[in-house]
Amino acid sequence: MVLHELSLKEISERLRTGTLTSANLMASCQHSYETTEENLSAYKTWCGDSAMRIAEASDAMFAAGRDLGPLMGIPVSVKDLFAVPNMPTYAGSSRDLGLQWQTPGRLINSLLKQLTLITGKTHTVEFAFGGIGINEHWGTPRNPWDTKAHRIPGGSSSGAGVSLCQGSALLALGTDTAGSVRIPASLTGNVGFKPTIGLWPRDHIVPLSKTLDTPGLLARSVEDVAFGFVAIENMLRNRYLGLPKVYSLKGIRVGVPEHFFWEDIQPDIDDVIQRAMKQLEGDGAILLPIKIPNCTEVYKIFQAGGLGAPELSSFLQQELPQAIEHLGSLVKVRVEGTESLSATEYLNRKAVIERSAINVKSVFKDIDVWFTPTLVSTAPKVDDLQDIDDYRKANMLALRNTSIANLMDLSAISLPVGLDGNGIPVGIQLTAAAMQERRLLSIALRVEEIVGKPKEVLGALPR
Amino acid sequence: MVLHELSLKEISERLRTGTLTSANLMASCQHSYETTEENLSAYKTWCGDSAMRIAEASDAMFAAGRDLGPLMGIPVSVKDLFAVPNMPTYAGSSRDLGLQWQTPGRLINSLLKQLTLITGKTHTVEFAFGGIGINEHWGTPRNPWDTKAHRIPGGSSSGAGVSLCQGSALLALGTDTAGSVRIPASLTGNVGFKPTIGLWPRDHIVPLSKTLDTPGLLARSVEDVAFGFVAIENMLRNRYLGLPKVYSLKGIRVGVPEHFFWEDIQPDIDDVIQRAMKQLEGDGAILLPIKIPNCTEVYKIFQAGGLGAPELSSFLQQELPQAIEHLGSLVKVRVEGTESLSATEYLNRKAVIERSAINVKSVFKDIDVWFTPTLVSTAPKVDDLQDIDDYRKANMLALRNTSIANLMDLSAISLPVGLDGNGIPVGIQLTAAAMQERRLLSIALRVEEIVGKPKEVLGALPR
Repeated sequence: MVLHELSLKEISERLRTGTLTSANLMASCQHSYETTEENLSAYKTWCGDSAMRIAEASDAMFAAGRDLGPLMGIPVSVKDLFAVPNMPTYAGSSRDLGLQWQTPGRLINSLLKQLTLITGKTHTVEFAFGGIGINEHWGTPRNPWDTKAHRIPGGSSSGAGVSLCQGSALLALGTDTAGSVRIPASLTGNVGFKPTIGLWPRDHIVPLSKTLDTPGLLARSVEDVAFGFVAIENMLRNRYLGLPKVYSLKGIRVGVPEHFFWEDIQPDIDDVIQRAMKQLEGDGAILLPIKIPNCTEVYKIFQAGGLGAPELSSFLQQELPQAIEHLGSLVKVRVEGTESLSATEYLNRKAVIERSAINVKSVFKDIDVWFTPTLVSTAPKVDDLQDIDDYRKANMLALRNTSIANLMDLSAISLPVGLDGNGIPVGIQLTAAAMQERRLLSIALRVEEIVGKPKEVLGALPR
Repeated sequence: MVLHELSLKEISERLRTGTLTSANLMASCQHSYETTEENLSAYKTWCGDSAMRIAEASDAMFAAGRDLGPLMGIPVSVKDLFAVPNMPTYAGSSRDLGLQWQTPGRLINSLLKQLTLITGKTHTVEFAFGGIGINEHWGTPRNPWDTKAHRIPGGSSSGAGVSLCQGSALLALGTDTAGSVRIPASLTGNVGFKPTIGLWPRDHIVPLSKTLDTPGLLARSVEDVAFGFVAIENMLRNRYLGLPKVYSLKGIRVGVPEHFFWEDIQPDIDDVIQRAMKQLEGDGAILLPIKIPNCTEVYKIFQAGGLGAPELSSFLQQELPQAIEHLGSLVKVRVEGTESLSATEYLNRKAVIERSAINVKSVFKDIDVWFTPTLVSTAPKVDDLQDIDDYRKANMLALRNTSIANLMDLSAISLPVGLDGNGIPVGIQLTAAAMQERRLLSIALRVEEIVGKPKEVLGALPR
């Protein structure tokens, strides 16, 4: 469908000039959903009818010259952790969490206020506790880049990237506690953006870690992420900043960590990453070897359950005690495993993480962003992860490179730069200092110009 | 000394009209210190010489017509938890914590910038972990209201109130995690003020609980507290608000909790409190019986060690591991006792406390402040607290009424309204909603007008 070749900016312009209607756009999304969902399984709950009604209202408003915001009339999928009116929240668990999880928070309100179409609730790992995408209750969405084997789509925002691939939504809202936006974005050939913790409000979103969670965006290009980011930011803060400007990379200092992020990298993935690095250098970026203090130390804490395991455990005990006995085994074993962690050790972990966030500031004195692979290995097949130890190993490896930005209080973005030997997309991750989102997006926009938009880099999806 | 009869406002005016010099003021404080310190023991470190040098500099500045702020040239004592340049920080422990604890944070800087005289570091309970005031390393300051028996001065800001009684300082900086400003203020016949957590910066102050700590003020009257509060607020926020206005209490809705705060009250204390309540009513205040949800629940958590025990334990492990083996027994037993607390239980406690802070907001829809005794029993004799169980019991009872304002994220003030049967001052506590400091001070200023200034209410200190 040609509509899906257009950027959000182009679509928003067409909606306003009357050369495209929101109803047509939504009809196209509905068609995409109907023809692919059985195979891909992106959604826990599809709400095409209500989205169509909003589309028609948007069209009437456009016709009357009213403009409620850049995302007006645009179909957006929402991870099933966000409370949205009239849509049940399961948070990947086996049961509807109840009406109180249908009251929207500030972030969803920033969409509702601009008459954004919400297509439905995309699948998530149960309580977002995992980076792979497997869900024992509702099945695991299929990575569309392998038509034969059922490979994982990445998680925990497991349906978000898939919804973009299937064309049922043009922007996807996810959450990222250790990589849960960037990993599914990378593995499905989309762009994934994690703002600094605290930039965007987290109320009325089922929490995994109250310390490390943040909402984030997935889209089909950096350009679309920037468009969505500015639309949400402006609505949240009642201001009118434009899109980030794009400059050449001449003089931009790109740190390349000498260690940690490259360990155990698949050679075919490394090749794709190295090619992208050379393209950045070709545009004038200055690549600088850097050392990032405390990486191993904070990742070790993360491997031991980090802050998420005890924080999820307490959240469930306090807010959803009845959900505990119905937890799937993959989540249950890790929630129960945290019972032996002492309060002092939890606070010690927090102190180490906070200290690493302070220490890392010095790294950004000398560089603008740092550059790493988003993941160092391909999307595993679901069948290969049936054993809990295999699952744990794959989960930890998937989360390794992304988790650092959460643990060290940074902003980060993943964008596709090619395909690996299995035909699965490969992403690079650009990481910037805390609250440097506009600067990060500005650089990423230029990187996308140089390496090419995802659809150019990856080619058409196999069908 | 007649100088000590003047309010801070009057003193600040005299300093500016040349009818009083800061050097004279400091000489008076030095004299008071020298003649009483051996008996009272308010200070861990006295810095009269450096204070005098600042006094002389202040006088030179006043003479030249320069004005750096309302607290310029005024002697202030500082609890030995705050980092102050050139003054060692012991935090009540047996050892100097080192040079890094001499770098001032934002609150101390707000004093330094206005050329406030810092008279020295007042005694504190070891790491501020206790409400009674006993310190096993450095002795326990004496409550000046009993010249015969050594009664406790209240804690953890144990030297702060005593420094005001002895006349070595005219304002005292303390910290309050569960009552550590209000308890010593009440037991020494001073006014103690705890702002909402987060209003004032906590950097470069040795923490007990990173969740519940706040700096606070002790002074000889509500008027002086208000003067100090505005001076610090204006310096911190670079703005110029005046003193809170004073109105009659006509129509002010004063909640009187029907339960919890009055349990186990000494009859002689109850009499004094009831008399004050009638005085408020006489001025037109509307007394309303109220129920405060969750009091018992959060106090139970507090009794079990709350958040302070694990948070102190982790702080010591992370920042001062060498201090642990040298802890006094009263602190050591409680720090070690928290090792068995699980992370989940700690987070559950935090969730209950956070929920209580949300629930309590509804109480303030119907009232402006609530009214309770600050403490329900007299200052115990040090000799009666040698047994750990007696200590624990007295400590918990002392902290009970004050701890609620910390646990429920409120602002509070204690002011003297009379003497109990032992001749020890009795305080009433007014508690207001979060971030309602100016309103609280406005009401407390009027209450002070009605019941009388501490020196009128209590009479002269026994000598």
